[in-house]
Amino acid sequence: MSTNKPQIAIVMGSKSDWTTMSEATQVLDQLQLPYHVEIVSAHRTPDKLFQFAESAESMGYKVIIAGAGGAAHLPGMIAAKTLIPVLGVPVKSSMLSGVDSLYSIVQMPKGIPVGTLAIGPAGAANAGLLAAQILGAFNAEITNRLRAFRQAQTDIVLDNPDPRI
Amino acid sequence: MSTNKPQIAIVMGSKSDWTTMSEATQVLDQLQLPYHVEIVSAHRTPDKLFQFAESAESMGYKVIIAGAGGAAHLPGMIAAKTLIPVLGVPVKSSMLSGVDSLYSIVQMPKGIPVGTLAIGPAGAANAGLLAAQILGAFNAEITNRLRAFRQAQTDIVLDNPDPRI
Amino acid sequence: MSTNKPQIAIVMGSKSDWTTMSEATQVLDQLQLPYHVEIVSAHRTPDKLFQFAESAESMGYKVIIAGAGGAAHLPGMIAAKTLIPVLGVPVKSSMLSGVDSLYSIVQMPKGIPVGTLAIGPAGAANAGLLAAQILGAFNAEITNRLRAFRQAQTDIVLDNPDPRI
Amino acid sequence: MSTNKPQIAIVMGSKSDWTTMSEATQVLDQLQLPYHVEIVSAHRTPDKLFQFAESAESMGYKVIIAGAGGAAHLPGMIAAKTLIPVLGVPVKSSMLSGVDSLYSIVQMPKGIPVGTLAIGPAGAANAGLLAAQILGAFNAEITNRLRAFRQAQTDIVLDNPDPRI
Amino acid sequence: MSTNKPQIAIVMGSKSDWTTMSEATQVLDQLQLPYHVEIVSAHRTPDKLFQFAESAESMGYKVIIAGAGGAAHLPGMIAAKTLIPVLGVPVKSSMLSGVDSLYSIVQMPKGIPVGTLAIGPAGAANAGLLAAQILGAFNAEITNRLRAFRQAQTDIVLDNPDPRI
Amino acid sequence: MSTNKPQIAIVMGSKSDWTTMSEATQVLDQLQLPYHVEIVSAHRTPDKLFQFAESAESMGYKVIIAGAGGAAHLPGMIAAKTLIPVLGVPVKSSMLSGVDSLYSIVQMPKGIPVGTLAIGPAGAANAGLLAAQILGAFNAEITNRLRAFRQAQTDIVLDNPDPRI
Amino acid sequence: MSTNKPQIAIVMGSKSDWTTMSEATQVLDQLQLPYHVEIVSAHRTPDKLFQFAESAESMGYKVIIAGAGGAAHLPGMIAAKTLIPVLGVPVKSSMLSGVDSLYSIVQMPKGIPVGTLAIGPAGAANAGLLAAQILGAFNAEITNRLRAFRQAQTDIVLDNPDPRI
Amino acid sequence: MSTNKPQIAIVMGSKSDWTTMSEATQVLDQLQLPYHVEIVSAHRTPDKLFQFAESAESMGYKVIIAGAGGAAHLPGMIAAKTLIPVLGVPVKSSMLSGVDSLYSIVQMPKGIPVGTLAIGPAGAANAGLLAAQILGAFNAEITNRLRAFRQAQTDIVLDNPDPRI
Repeated sequence: MSTNKPQIAIVMGSKSDWTTMSEATQVLDQLQLPYHVEIVSAHRTPDKLFQFAESAESMGYKVIIAGAGGAAHLPGMIAAKTLIPVLGVPVKSSMLSGVDSLYSIVQMPKGIPVGTLAIGPAGAANAGLLAAQILGAFNAEITNRLRAFRQAQTDIVLDNPDPRI
Repeated sequence: MSTNKPQIAIVMGSKSDWTTMSEATQVLDQLQLPYHVEIVSAHRTPDKLFQFAESAESMGYKVIIAGAGGAAHLPGMIAAKTLIPVLGVPVKSSMLSGVDSLYSIVQMPKGIPVGTLAIGPAGAANAGLLAAQILGAFNAEITNRLRAFRQAQTDIVLDNPDPRI
Repeated sequence: MSTNKPQIAIVMGSKSDWTTMSEATQVLDQLQLPYHVEIVSAHRTPDKLFQFAESAESMGYKVIIAGAGGAAHLPGMIAAKTLIPVLGVPVKSSMLSGVDSLYSIVQMPKGIPVGTLAIGPAGAANAGLLAAQILGAFNAEITNRLRAFRQAQTDIVLDNPDPRI
Repeated sequence: MSTNKPQIAIVMGSKSDWTTMSEATQVLDQLQLPYHVEIVSAHRTPDKLFQFAESAESMGYKVIIAGAGGAAHLPGMIAAKTLIPVLGVPVKSSMLSGVDSLYSIVQMPKGIPVGTLAIGPAGAANAGLLAAQILGAFNAEITNRLRAFRQAQTDIVLDNPDPRI
Repeated sequence: MSTNKPQIAIVMGSKSDWTTMSEATQVLDQLQLPYHVEIVSAHRTPDKLFQFAESAESMGYKVIIAGAGGAAHLPGMIAAKTLIPVLGVPVKSSMLSGVDSLYSIVQMPKGIPVGTLAIGPAGAANAGLLAAQILGAFNAEITNRLRAFRQAQTDIVLDNPDPRI
Repeated sequence: MSTNKPQIAIVMGSKSDWTTMSEATQVLDQLQLPYHVEIVSAHRTPDKLFQFAESAESMGYKVIIAGAGGAAHLPGMIAAKTLIPVLGVPVKSSMLSGVDSLYSIVQMPKGIPVGTLAIGPAGAANAGLLAAQILGAFNAEITNRLRAFRQAQTDIVLDNPDPRI
Repeated sequence: MSTNKPQIAIVMGSKSDWTTMSEATQVLDQLQLPYHVEIVSAHRTPDKLFQFAESAESMGYKVIIAGAGGAAHLPGMIAAKTLIPVLGVPVKSSMLSGVDSLYSIVQMPKGIPVGTLAIGPAGAANAGLLAAQILGAFNAEITNRLRAFRQAQTDIVLDNPDPRI
Repeated sequence: MSTNKPQIAIVMGSKSDWTTMSEATQVLDQLQLPYHVEIVSAHRTPDKLFQFAESAESMGYKVIIAGAGGAAHLPGMIAAKTLIPVLGVPVKSSMLSGVDSLYSIVQMPKGIPVGTLAIGPAGAANAGLLAAQILGAFNAEITNRLRAFRQAQTDIVLDNPDPRI
């Protein structure tokens, strides 16, 4: 990446989502991809949500990662306000194991897509990876980094085939 | 009700929700309560949603009924933008029987409530009734109408105790 | 509020529901709204339930908040016995995560509405808020308090945009 | 049975439950056991529900079968008002396949039991059978009839072992 | 009860079910009703299951309480082998919260009923109560004890109406 | 296969399961593998179930396929009474889409396994295939037939790559 | 788009998925974006799946849309074999309403992401839109088309605000 | 078993599955049956998965046990690449209690079967037992060991009938 300006924005509904969403930033750190991170609450700061989404294109973001739990409206409402691809991360809710978060994010109506990842930290990490893959589709250098990243994770499995040790 | 200005607004995410939401209007018609009805889509018309919610207080609405299906963000986002009580109706979705709609509406985070009714037409009818009960709490005439309405529905059961005929 | 007589009653099925339902009282305390609180069990004290519901109107209640878990019949049975708006809070059950409580409260048949909030403490807090919003729809002073309350919760998010600190 | 006075009462929340609950009566007809049948709605006729439950013992009922759908409060509320054994039949709901009915009936709190049968017509038929078995535990003649009934249903399977014809 | 011979048998699939099923025995102890208790595993001791069920009538049992978890076949298989009323208790499973146990017990086919109680300890306690109510339907002394038991549990709620203390 | 004596037995709980279970026989017919087919009901003919399972080894069966719906106890109870591998097919139930059947079959306790296939006809067909694969593991001729069968199903996909025609 | 070479590949597990997946092609047709479409079955043609995924980069694809139902392994296995972003569409299954498809696609482990859309045709249409948005993030002309597409869908709602006509 | 060459292979998607899958090895150790154990990740090492499956027949395996969690593709993809019977063990996932694992493994499409066991350690133990039963169907010595194993587990229950001690 020749630029330091982040092309990936990571937003989440509340500070408590950080333990989940920080997995996305760790992946991006490993891939040396800059990102913007911010709390934007669909329900407590709806105007900020709209301002964020409306200015996202001019900010130069190419992918937005949004994590939220419960009646998780953040990813879908951002998606309704921008043409930038939005990836949604269902944060595990304390009451319904994140099934509510998952349904609220993935079941978007025809016309406004949100690419949804797995519930919880694995989903957050994968949102970081998918964002990188999207950038990588148009940037060979990023793809090379991803190839190395993936090879490394493959090698860990290949080098440790015996679960007993 | 001495005024013709509707104190109840009924909004829904798409025209296809009308077969469900019309149940609310039928109840209000029976109670002779005026209402405003309009399609407002959280995902396809987010700006209209905000304008609607922001002007709702000045329009004189005392209760807003919002119906939506799937990743049903409409009730919660209206609630985030107004202090008027919002009642949510989960419209039955074609894929998940409305469980997705229910979770997306009811599982609101602390701070922004939506009073949620049952999935489908029964919920829509009950949203109309609950709106009327809210108005009735401050209007004896409406309460009288509700009392008659409820007595009538009780009498139907009392007058027909035998399920075989 | 110029009166000290509570317009909000908060009932719950058992003492163990208090850790959940106290969230409603905390919200109302912040809003300086008086309330009545009492244990009323649909199954262990059905007669008390009926007496409570029958006398609720004469007690001056404008909204009833009812919390219960499992086969949570309390909100719906109160609703069947009064025209005062009833808000239901599904208390998290130890066996089915509160899905049983949610379904038992929200899936009311056509004719008897219960405005249902989220499972658990967030739902209880929101029941308090929705009750206040209902009163506020007819009382500008309460609405002003709610506006300040909500602005404060918005400001907390706006003032702390970075989840990492 | 030496008496014509029914020892079994079958109640249901609405006329639409009859297609389900009639299965219970058909079983009892085959067993030549008299029964009382009546619509009692927990939500639309709560007072009738209480009167029914309070007078059930003096009516000579030994078992009460109660069928209801959705937020199915009828079986549990009858059980709360009588010491006669109550059997609950979850009627299939149009929205949630009867899972809501099942949870609302079976998840009763400690202290007030409802013996719950399967969702839908099979459950209604089995409620009739279980009622008969309860009577039969104290009446050899009824047990004899049940033995013949069960032998007949066994013989149908034994006599037709080949599913292809 | 003029006899010391137990009319209630309590069986369970494994020793680990005892923490749940002991609730049934505690209720029966309070009601001074004798019972038989034994481990009978549908899957590990199928022959014992059949012998138990076949001899249950001659043992003088009037009600059988069976608790099991997971693919909980014990209640249903006993019911298939006897005409004595069988009450089923779904023991909470470690993997699916007892939904599997509940479905395996309650969804019996037409012809072989199991009266099913709530998942877990509350269900076990209620199985004891329902068994006592079944006996009580034909024994005024037991009904009197049940009436006192229930009044006591009502009084606890009535005497402690304030959840805050 | 040098013998005409069937090594595969296919049993099902009721005649209505045949539309599902016949898929297993169609697969075995294509593979020219003989099989025995019979209705055995866990709940209506428990003694026949035991006799069938006890004699299965002497009948020369190497695999038993058992299909059942609802509280589907047939596969698990056969498994409890024989050491022959049992494959279970959850028949789609009319009330819970077969989730009840699936849980009742697959959630067997430690000690008594049932190899469970998918809900409905696809699962029945796959039970036939898995039975054949088990025989094939010890019979090269059967494996050859399976190889041809699988190649044919692969070729259908390979030869028709365009979904539009 | 100055090139006719498709940058989007749409694959599906079987011909029966076409009624769902054709929605993606319709969206792309409207946006004048070329695409490749092909049946690739993870289970019936695993080698073809690997060949497809391995050659996808050299084919010039920038996004792969994969639809599948039931134990839907197609999207995840393609994702495991390429660095091109993969979007998954859960096809509604006949047995479990597509919940099985959804879980099988979205719950990918850390390391291999699949951006998952809604169950059924709406999800397929949105997969087409999200693919276009991904291309559009690096191509202003495509973004312009998307902007017009979205404005048109907004206008339909704005121009028809009354659900009753 | 006259041979030391393992006829059973046990694979799992990650090292963290070992606490579950080791139950299978403990059962096989008790039965003195040799086995191969290895980590093979469908998503992180897809090529190894294919190599493993393609060489399984020549390795002399007669049964493959595969355990995986979440979007558990390992059992189904191995099954797609070999004619050896595959038994699947759904490992309990941290987010959805293993329901996602179960659905991803059991809901295989027609043509490629996976014999699925219970979620978690019990399922792993049973996979070991079912593998042994498959071998035992063609090996009297193994069947004898299984008979002793099962008798021992029956005796434990028979010898300890009282859950209170």
